[in-house]
Amino acid sequence: MFIKGFRFSAVEAAIKRPGRKDIALIYSEVPATAAAVFTTNKVKAAPVLLSAKNIASGQCQALLVNSGNANACTGERGMSDAIETASMLASKLQISEKLIQVCSTGVIGVPLPMERIRTALPSLVSELGNVSLEDIAEAIMTTDTFAKSSVLTGAIEGKSYTIAGIAKGAGMIMPNMATMLSFIITDAAVDPALINQIFLSSVERSFNAITIDGDTSTNDTCLLMANGASGAPLIKPATPEAAQFTSLLDSVLLDLAKQIVKDGEGATKFVEIRIKGASNDSEAKKAAISVANSSLVKTAFYGQDANWGRIFAAIGYSGIEVNPDLLALWFDDVCMAKQGIFAGGNAEERGTEILHKKDFTVTVDLGIGDGTATVYTSDLSHEYVSINADYRT
Amino acid sequence: MFIKGFRFSAVEAAIKRPGRKDIALIYSEVPATAAAVFTTNKVKAAPVLLSAKNIASGQCQALLVNSGNANACTGERGMSDAIETASMLASKLQISEKLIQVCSTGVIGVPLPMERIRTALPSLVSELGNVSLEDIAEAIMTTDTFAKSSVLTGAIEGKSYTIAGIAKGAGMIMPNMATMLSFIITDAAVDPALINQIFLSSVERSFNAITIDGDTSTNDTCLLMANGASGAPLIKPATPEAAQFTSLLDSVLLDLAKQIVKDGEGATKFVEIRIKGASNDSEAKKAAISVANSSLVKTAFYGQDANWGRIFAAIGYSGIEVNPDLLALWFDDVCMAKQGIFAGGNAEERGTEILHKKDFTVTVDLGIGDGTATVYTSDLSHEYVSINADYRT
Repeated sequence: MFIKGFRFSAVEAAIKRPGRKDIALIYSEVPATAAAVFTTNKVKAAPVLLSAKNIASGQCQALLVNSGNANACTGERGMSDAIETASMLASKLQISEKLIQVCSTGVIGVPLPMERIRTALPSLVSELGNVSLEDIAEAIMTTDTFAKSSVLTGAIEGKSYTIAGIAKGAGMIMPNMATMLSFIITDAAVDPALINQIFLSSVERSFNAITIDGDTSTNDTCLLMANGASGAPLIKPATPEAAQFTSLLDSVLLDLAKQIVKDGEGATKFVEIRIKGASNDSEAKKAAISVANSSLVKTAFYGQDANWGRIFAAIGYSGIEVNPDLLALWFDDVCMAKQGIFAGGNAEERGTEILHKKDFTVTVDLGIGDGTATVYTSDLSHEYVSINADYRT
Repeated sequence: MFIKGFRFSAVEAAIKRPGRKDIALIYSEVPATAAAVFTTNKVKAAPVLLSAKNIASGQCQALLVNSGNANACTGERGMSDAIETASMLASKLQISEKLIQVCSTGVIGVPLPMERIRTALPSLVSELGNVSLEDIAEAIMTTDTFAKSSVLTGAIEGKSYTIAGIAKGAGMIMPNMATMLSFIITDAAVDPALINQIFLSSVERSFNAITIDGDTSTNDTCLLMANGASGAPLIKPATPEAAQFTSLLDSVLLDLAKQIVKDGEGATKFVEIRIKGASNDSEAKKAAISVANSSLVKTAFYGQDANWGRIFAAIGYSGIEVNPDLLALWFDDVCMAKQGIFAGGNAEERGTEILHKKDFTVTVDLGIGDGTATVYTSDLSHEYVSINADYRT
């Protein structure tokens, strides 16, 4: 995919082990209007702290990302490593340090191999244009089994623009933020007054609506850069163009978020949890997250066991307002329970059939109000345990 | 074990399948002063609702418990089944219905097989004395691999008394309450003004300090009955006797709670999580629970991987006050990290050795205040997934 005014490079720095491109650069020919969302974890990696400071300018021109090492729990040395990297890159690119974002993902608690990064940086800059955005999606993978990207095109007054995104993440995935990196770039021109608000609400409906294992990482970063190189007119707040852009952005983010869940560590199922009838949307989301994070619900999905009682139990302890006698539940369109009890008939057989599918939907109606929420999750399998028991080796 | 004035019976009612005693009765010859703690799940099983109503009297003389069926998510029929069972038992025993507690554990969402229970009740009463308390611990097992009991003896003015407890629970274990049943009986005489307060604080330090999978069930019940049959003098508030009784009760409950964790579904490790230096005890407990419930921390324990960074991450997202630069962590007495970063030296090798033990302690010092908490947990293994993928079959 080609997005005007952006160039990419990726090289091998052997950060964790040799044999793959593990450090990458996304560069915009002009400073891009930018917005970012970072992990809510209070133990934040050094690159997150530095990038959060830099994004305050509302602009970004270059994003440096490495996999294999998270540069988290690395103290003062971690911060000086992040600063040195950003500063070295800024000087090679001859741009202000404030325009640099740095991201790291991988093992926690190990200092970055700075010598290898210092060696890699000059070629990252000199080789700009040597790879595509999809190659960067590969360079940022850790336990991911496939590279994640998504692209859509819009148009304003006959001038087309592109929104393209990549993401990584397969475990330590939980809202606010899910454990992941995602970089969205567009050659649209977006009003600085609009970009933050659009981006935050789009993230809320996508990356903040997925959970794999309930763990929130130290490094989550989601960045949007809009460089205006398409030549399409500036997108201003409260216009039809803003609505179109928002809708395309939503689609790209949701597509990437779903790809992350499908690649969930050891996942054999992709499950959409829809809660309706809650007293408000925020209570609905709490209930959906509680169901999606329940180890007992997730193992039942893995075992293809239509154990709807565990879902009611997870809603019961989610802390929201519940009237057990009003609960109803469906697997796809099969009603398993209504008024809090088993629906009867052949629901058990039909529900079990649904759970044998690879993708299905769980809908719970709380019967109280108008609150709704949708969350995407995976099952909990033997493979998840295997992957995470040996992650560092 | 023998506890004066109590008799027990257990018979086979084939509630889930034939071949074991699955319904049991604990009976005190006189009404016992009693206290109980029930699940905080808002989806409560019928027997929980009925027992919570009955315990308001402050007394209990008979406890009926079945395994194989939770009588949860069974609606009006579930409640009328619970009431009918209690009422039939009261009439057979010729005591008031208010003195009956009923407990159920097992599959959610399936009505009780009432005909089989009606058939079993008369023999439960006529055969009172046919089994010991340990046999009841067996009758209430579900996925438990061993029966759990604990007993201690105290004395007042030369008169001895006994505190004996049994418990079941191996999965769906999370504080408030852990998914479990536990029945504590004593022939001590305890002042009604004292019993609730002692019991609640003892439960807080034991059953509410364990977690296996973060799931809270619909049926948790913990009951204490004190019938005074030992002849030892009445234990009154704010006396040395009350202190002795509390300390013995604490020990029995903590012993049972630890047995539950050791029998955690698929558990290969028993881990004590100690948090100190938090801004207060409640923040310390939040941090401890967050670490104990993290799937990534638990799989690292299973994989015997000294991945301390995941523990810092779990503290970081627990919602408490954290200064990452002050964090320190030990596996047993091996310091893995201090001032937020790796401790260096041979910590990796020594920490890995500790994680190869079956029991070990994780201590985290937050370095902020005086708050402390201890929580007990197990690891997350392939076997946990296997057990819960096929629970109903």
